[in-house]
Amino acid sequence: RPMLPAVLNACDAARDAALERLFTFLRIPSISTDPAYAGEVKRCAEHIAADLAAIGLDVAVYPTEGHPMVVAKSRESHASGPHVLFYGHYDVQPVDPLDLWETDPFDPRIVERRDGTAKIVARGSSDDKGQVMTFVEACRAWIEATGKLPVPVTILLEGEEESGSPSLDGFFKAHGDVIAADFALVCDTSQWDAETPAIATTLRGLVGEEVTITCADKDLHSGSFGGAARNPIQLLAKILASLHDDDGRVTLPGFYDGVPEISDALRAMWDGLDFSESDFLGEVGLSIPAGETGRSVLEKIWARPTCEVNGITGGYTGKGFKTVLPSKASAKVSFRLVGTQDPLAIRKAFRAHVEAMLPADCKVEFHEHGASPATVLDVSGEGVSKARQALEEEWGRPAVLVGMGGSIPIVGAFKRRFGLDSVMVGYALDNDQIHSPNEKYELASFIKGTRSWARILGAYGNLS
Amino acid sequence: RPMLPAVLNACDAARDAALERLFTFLRIPSISTDPAYAGEVKRCAEHIAADLAAIGLDVAVYPTEGHPMVVAKSRESHASGPHVLFYGHYDVQPVDPLDLWETDPFDPRIVERRDGTAKIVARGSSDDKGQVMTFVEACRAWIEATGKLPVPVTILLEGEEESGSPSLDGFFKAHGDVIAADFALVCDTSQWDAETPAIATTLRGLVGEEVTITCADKDLHSGSFGGAARNPIQLLAKILASLHDDDGRVTLPGFYDGVPEISDALRAMWDGLDFSESDFLGEVGLSIPAGETGRSVLEKIWARPTCEVNGITGGYTGKGFKTVLPSKASAKVSFRLVGTQDPLAIRKAFRAHVEAMLPADCKVEFHEHGASPATVLDVSGEGVSKARQALEEEWGRPAVLVGMGGSIPIVGAFKRRFGLDSVMVGYALDNDQIHSPNEKYELASFIKGTRSWARILGAYGNLS
Repeated sequence: RPMLPAVLNACDAARDAALERLFTFLRIPSISTDPAYAGEVKRCAEHIAADLAAIGLDVAVYPTEGHPMVVAKSRESHASGPHVLFYGHYDVQPVDPLDLWETDPFDPRIVERRDGTAKIVARGSSDDKGQVMTFVEACRAWIEATGKLPVPVTILLEGEEESGSPSLDGFFKAHGDVIAADFALVCDTSQWDAETPAIATTLRGLVGEEVTITCADKDLHSGSFGGAARNPIQLLAKILASLHDDDGRVTLPGFYDGVPEISDALRAMWDGLDFSESDFLGEVGLSIPAGETGRSVLEKIWARPTCEVNGITGGYTGKGFKTVLPSKASAKVSFRLVGTQDPLAIRKAFRAHVEAMLPADCKVEFHEHGASPATVLDVSGEGVSKARQALEEEWGRPAVLVGMGGSIPIVGAFKRRFGLDSVMVGYALDNDQIHSPNEKYELASFIKGTRSWARILGAYGNLS
Repeated sequence: RPMLPAVLNACDAARDAALERLFTFLRIPSISTDPAYAGEVKRCAEHIAADLAAIGLDVAVYPTEGHPMVVAKSRESHASGPHVLFYGHYDVQPVDPLDLWETDPFDPRIVERRDGTAKIVARGSSDDKGQVMTFVEACRAWIEATGKLPVPVTILLEGEEESGSPSLDGFFKAHGDVIAADFALVCDTSQWDAETPAIATTLRGLVGEEVTITCADKDLHSGSFGGAARNPIQLLAKILASLHDDDGRVTLPGFYDGVPEISDALRAMWDGLDFSESDFLGEVGLSIPAGETGRSVLEKIWARPTCEVNGITGGYTGKGFKTVLPSKASAKVSFRLVGTQDPLAIRKAFRAHVEAMLPADCKVEFHEHGASPATVLDVSGEGVSKARQALEEEWGRPAVLVGMGGSIPIVGAFKRRFGLDSVMVGYALDNDQIHSPNEKYELASFIKGTRSWARILGAYGNLS
């Protein structure tokens, strides 16, 4: 007897109640970075734990040195495997600048548009409470309609994703066994566009370095010393300029070790996407692609490593002019990594390169700001193949396999620590204004996202 | 009948009274940049005007849009020429940080050292009230001892030197005729060292430029756009790095037009100076000269043009790390000029160079911060030759002709507007801490400076 139609019906029938549950979740200001909200974050963990228990899952709340981890497990399921681990987070970004919000960020509301679409406006509506609830509501519908989940499910909800996940490592060490699974499902990414679902299959890694160069031991007057004393800004500019060659390639020795060419199949899929380089750049006021010669924009941001200067400062930067010849200049430099590039080797190569360009009477200090390798997920297994098929059934068009220019550290951690691949399916849109005022989530994302998870879970249990 | 011995005796006899007059002058907090002190600046102008009138000079105080100009003229003199114009300023720098002063900056005091030397500590003691009073006291001694000055003298004292001389141009336009003279004497510079007098004969010019580069029209996320969107910091670094070649020469086309080689005589004099490049650089923590290959440090700072970056900023510069790909980056760049280098041509060449390196979808804004040519003073005339001889008689060793790495705009203005050369003789020392807390002037500078001017004035009148 087919189960899925009843489950999808249950999803649709619960729509108003599901929205009300999401709104209750959104009303709790679970801002993890601000200690003033610690009580609210805790209340939010307890709220979602109670909701997961109400569905019939076994729930545990694990205190950490920071905010709690919520873990929920299914008691029984129609099929014995695969066991899936769902990851999401219940904390949200701060809301400042508050005066740019059109309404209270923690008073969620639905805004209907003339074309019949509607959006849910609130902090966390898209990142990540709305996305989390698509999965929770799908689980609820399966249990309501069929008595149990199609496959064993563990849900892990973190309360510190927006503040750098400081307690994750400790939690994994102490309780790693409770999240054992065959693969992970992560709902914290975007669709290709409003009509086209997407699965992210690669994430770039990141190495952050701060470099401070000191020449003279005090600020000098450029009239008295200019031309004879080393200028650290000019030295730094020379070093930064030397990091790329004329073809936009990074010059550090060994930098491209472990950088794979994308497969012909992936290239064909990306070439087939309705992606306009001129629209992509045009939206931010640009028209000429930067970076490596001979690579497409999508390849550059999804599949190629980069070196970017994220900040620079030195000398007098106020209004007017001072003829100072400064003592120090510094820059923040980051590398995005792909394939099997080694973050520590790249940090070392960068530091060696800077030191080699430094005159013997100048000094350099380095500060590290993270080092994580790229994540390349298995796209051949059933985790991805069944999700693709289920998404196509819901959306009426194939799901696109996309790269992600950014980094989601949890995905790398799952892979490195537990050997777990992740299936990254999310229903956000690029214009959701996450981390910004007036964050929103499409009502359609919430509705079709819930139905999508219901289908994906069914597909994993071979239940139709 | 020789007059000079009596004049020098008068200088010595008046020492205590002269110090008391200097202290009265120093007690007036004539901080020109701070509107709260406008009344004190006016009081200071009136005070020095009254003192000059007391000597027997014809004095006029000219109101300006800012602080007043004080002009005093001798009524008669022993010889008809040359007519000399003395320039100094009665305003002082602000005193903050006040807590670093050991005593009240406007309560002057004498601090005696164990070796018998002593210093006068107060704001303005060296820059420029103490230096101004060496000339005023020399004039007073000549009139007291002989009834008149040796040559016609005009004294111009400005009240806005420390705030960029905004009223000078207007004053020159309205009253330029009152400062007509054969050449100027400027007492606002340093000796070579405590035992060796110096005359500055060249001043570098200055072109200031602020350049702001805009790529994307908003800050971007380096994960989403890195590798495809232009990074303005990297573009700026590349531009700044391109301004010098591997030999430390500035690469702008035509930059060295009008840059003379120094004469063999000057080179021989500089080579003969007791100057240690390693001490000069060592005092600021450096050991390897920067700048042009094959030039001495003195040549670099006195006789060669430079390009220095005085400030740079872009992207995230706070604590920690943000993976922003910024919209803008900017730098403040200055050029020191020598010889007949054309500041406007250099500004134009700089802007053309930046624009040529700019991709078509990026924008650049320039802001100018001054443009003045170098000043090369006539060292062959009697103004310098007689001053050199008089200084040697007072100090017992030859006065050194030195270059100045910095700029004194009034000297260029005298030359360009009135064709007036300046003889720059000053008795400050490099360690006087002008513009800093605990500014001081050597008591010996005040005493021997007064006697030096007495001798120089006598020499101009051929009076011994």
